[in-house]
Amino acid sequence: MAPYAFPLLIKQLLVTPIAQRSRKEIVYRDQLRFDYPTLVARIGRLGSALHRMGVGHGSTVAVLDWDSHRYLESYFGIPMLGATLMKANIRLSPEQLVYTLEHSGAETVLLNIDFIPLIKEIRGRLRRVKRFICLTDDGIAPATLEWAAEYEEMLAAGDPAYEFPEFDENTRATLFYTTGTTGLPKGVYFSHRQLVLHCLTVLASVAQAGENGRFSRNDVYMPLTPMFHAHAWGYPYIATLCGWKQVYPGRYEPSLLVKLAKSEGATFSHCVPTVLDMVLSAPEAHDADFGGWKILIGGSALSRTLCKRALDRNIDVYCGYGMSESCPLLTLAQIKTDSVEGLDDREDRELDIRITAGMPILLSQMRIVDDSMTSPPSDGVAVGEVVARTPYLTQGYLNNSDASATLWRGGWMHTGDIGRFDKDGYLHLVDRQKDVIKSGGEWISSIELENLIGQHPSVREVAVIGVTDTKWGERPLALVVLKTPGGARAEDLKAHLKTFAKAGTISPYAVPDRWMFIGKLDKTSVGKIDKKRLRERYGDDT
Amino acid sequence: MAPYAFPLLIKQLLVTPIAQRSRKEIVYRDQLRFDYPTLVARIGRLGSALHRMGVGHGSTVAVLDWDSHRYLESYFGIPMLGATLMKANIRLSPEQLVYTLEHSGAETVLLNIDFIPLIKEIRGRLRRVKRFICLTDDGIAPATLEWAAEYEEMLAAGDPAYEFPEFDENTRATLFYTTGTTGLPKGVYFSHRQLVLHCLTVLASVAQAGENGRFSRNDVYMPLTPMFHAHAWGYPYIATLCGWKQVYPGRYEPSLLVKLAKSEGATFSHCVPTVLDMVLSAPEAHDADFGGWKILIGGSALSRTLCKRALDRNIDVYCGYGMSESCPLLTLAQIKTDSVEGLDDREDRELDIRITAGMPILLSQMRIVDDSMTSPPSDGVAVGEVVARTPYLTQGYLNNSDASATLWRGGWMHTGDIGRFDKDGYLHLVDRQKDVIKSGGEWISSIELENLIGQHPSVREVAVIGVTDTKWGERPLALVVLKTPGGARAEDLKAHLKTFAKAGTISPYAVPDRWMFIGKLDKTSVGKIDKKRLRERYGDDT
Repeated sequence: MAPYAFPLLIKQLLVTPIAQRSRKEIVYRDQLRFDYPTLVARIGRLGSALHRMGVGHGSTVAVLDWDSHRYLESYFGIPMLGATLMKANIRLSPEQLVYTLEHSGAETVLLNIDFIPLIKEIRGRLRRVKRFICLTDDGIAPATLEWAAEYEEMLAAGDPAYEFPEFDENTRATLFYTTGTTGLPKGVYFSHRQLVLHCLTVLASVAQAGENGRFSRNDVYMPLTPMFHAHAWGYPYIATLCGWKQVYPGRYEPSLLVKLAKSEGATFSHCVPTVLDMVLSAPEAHDADFGGWKILIGGSALSRTLCKRALDRNIDVYCGYGMSESCPLLTLAQIKTDSVEGLDDREDRELDIRITAGMPILLSQMRIVDDSMTSPPSDGVAVGEVVARTPYLTQGYLNNSDASATLWRGGWMHTGDIGRFDKDGYLHLVDRQKDVIKSGGEWISSIELENLIGQHPSVREVAVIGVTDTKWGERPLALVVLKTPGGARAEDLKAHLKTFAKAGTISPYAVPDRWMFIGKLDKTSVGKIDKKRLRERYGDDT
Repeated sequence: MAPYAFPLLIKQLLVTPIAQRSRKEIVYRDQLRFDYPTLVARIGRLGSALHRMGVGHGSTVAVLDWDSHRYLESYFGIPMLGATLMKANIRLSPEQLVYTLEHSGAETVLLNIDFIPLIKEIRGRLRRVKRFICLTDDGIAPATLEWAAEYEEMLAAGDPAYEFPEFDENTRATLFYTTGTTGLPKGVYFSHRQLVLHCLTVLASVAQAGENGRFSRNDVYMPLTPMFHAHAWGYPYIATLCGWKQVYPGRYEPSLLVKLAKSEGATFSHCVPTVLDMVLSAPEAHDADFGGWKILIGGSALSRTLCKRALDRNIDVYCGYGMSESCPLLTLAQIKTDSVEGLDDREDRELDIRITAGMPILLSQMRIVDDSMTSPPSDGVAVGEVVARTPYLTQGYLNNSDASATLWRGGWMHTGDIGRFDKDGYLHLVDRQKDVIKSGGEWISSIELENLIGQHPSVREVAVIGVTDTKWGERPLALVVLKTPGGARAEDLKAHLKTFAKAGTISPYAVPDRWMFIGKLDKTSVGKIDKKRLRERYGDDT
């Protein structure tokens, strides 16, 4: 007989929790809980039912759902057929949703009934979609849309012991669209091999944590980043491989999130800063001790203030860095013991590290480069564009060779972020390449300004964009949301910044002379500040 | 430009410690220490120097050395050229060494001067070896052999920034010979992909430890298993990837081992039970507190007695299971919290778990099967042969298609071990398939008898083999080494065993009626009890 070559397939991730006899549970809100053998059986049922409908190698199945046990099952059952799991972004505009669904070629759509109104609006334009499968918590499929099946009925008729096929590990497993930049959404895609390697690499990287962020088999996972976004940072796969207890909160409601975190004992979550703020500000979080909860922050910069607020509640909060194109994790802000031990201001230094973008994780090759792909001296100060190589980066944008070539120019994946590595190896992001403000031949970091302005006690949120200036080329414009209207004037905030300029933290010319107080900042579908939209509203793009 | 596909190559393991700015050191005995940038430079020097000698893709380079920084450099610098690192077993008989070196096709041999006498004896029969490179601690190459170069001189002339080539991840990286069974030594081989995956998988598995055995970047690694044996269980690669401090003890001397462990602060080692016993029995270990030292035991069963002795010295001791054919790690005896929490006899139960073969690690597919590859019911009791699938098993024996087909019959790698999985998923090895004693239609486990006899206070070591019996087919013969000659009689030991038979631990018919008291037990080259030799001496094979 031939030796078994062991392709790196998503189905291999299900072997471990069963072999290790995990007794943990998968929990959905305050409504449902089941064990790992049941999870594996449900994935078998899902796969066999979809297979019977004709889904297989080459098919694409889209999912529109909140964070649920069903989404977790789709993470496995769909790619394990050799099909592509297309994670539709439920926060897109109807036009973008039509574009991405059509572009993905999805014929089958798993649809949470909450999104029926959205789909009805665009149904006529979805020419490639053949069937909808109804996802609903109460088992009742509304008659307002024609369904091929209701999810639980479909599973009931499926085969719990379905044997999924074996195929090449480079088979495409997932596809989703990134909308962060200008132009049409672009599809990024990942193979079975890439997802398994992301899973192993992230987990192995956490195995070598120093002072914070370690995992164990007793961890309790609750995502706070939508599952349609960048594989929920890969953690549904990691949590399943390790047989962790997993808690899926459905539609994010701050009160329920806090309630679930406490009642189920969440020990690991990941989210954007906005969601962390939302959780900490929920009435249920008042006076709560969140000791034992590790929260990984990504998506945008974590301010010192918000980091401190979380630490004060005993949350082990720290940042990671990545993007849709990178699966996503490239770095983790683990505190190395030798970066902090013996320091008088150790706590302060730890906080500094937690809000960096972190260190390249295992196998992650990262450089900063100029336009000619040359790296500046590694002196801890020089900046450049961050480029990366890891075993799990999208190999391009789907059916978009121009954008793919730009992404991979010089054989490295370009992040579009400007950053520097400090002497301990931590990455500091200076700005998005397109957000950096070029003023009088010097670069001003909008992120740095936002972080410092955000430390003023009257400021709730702030964004800084560049606007054309006849003398300097560009100058920063600060868009500020105050906690109480009139709580501070531009002069107060300028004075606040000037103290940092005096201390040498920023250059004096970086202090904005243009300020605007507004009611709220536009956000993207994943909760990041939408600078593109802000530039349209308040900048030269108006 | 084309996207970078990121083949899983050993050279990728060197990126991380540099990117993460490890400040740890590589230490050789009490003689030498250097940092990671120096390690990378020395590997570059080694690779470029060998390349200049004509070593490249398709070449085989053999190493005969004690555990040293030089061996660590060979683990990287040789495979990174696309060449095969052949780890010669320095404890083989001259005949076996000739056979394995010739069979491997090694043209270049890195030779520690301690083995010159051995090589001189067989030099004329090594027809394929073209050159010897001299490994010596004092830099003086003895004139008793003709050398192509002395290692340090060769490195001094090499290029520290040498750029190693990229190639297919399935390129063979390592080769070594297993002598455990009958017949000629058989070569097992592993690709770059397999070694990188072993590294990530083991590390990720430790990330999900429950109660014991966790790693961090502050770990200090000191091998206590020879580096020629099964990649020193993969840990030189793991330690380097993580940027750990690494301590290589050279030739094993119990006193120096204990001294190094204490002075360098070793926190992780791996060894066979014999070496653990040797370390604990060294005069320098008397009254020493080894708190913080994790020791992974493999190669043969760890007795309760020895486990307890190590635990009493605050060593976090636990077992793993694997073999040359499996790279080697298949399982780890990590204690799951839910297997022990709330138990009155928790400490006892933890000890029970530590001496099992452990749970399958991440992605490790393991079954127990009968001759027709059918698995018995998973009732925690049924036994069968252990078979495995992981991403890093040898795909066969080199140039030995018959043995390869036997190894992989049914598409699973056969371990030749008989075992059972208990209800918590821990593997208990009952016996080697060929060591199990078939008596009156029932199976008697020689390992179980050895473990119980070994608990008698007068017994130093014991081996049980099967001998032909006209009535029962086979009966057990116990070969006993006493702590003091005459310290116990066969009747005492039988009485000791009968208490276990009464308690139901073993069947009454398992109690041997044949006993032999001998001066010492034969050991294999890696320190395991050599049952083959014992059967030749004392059994029917005489």
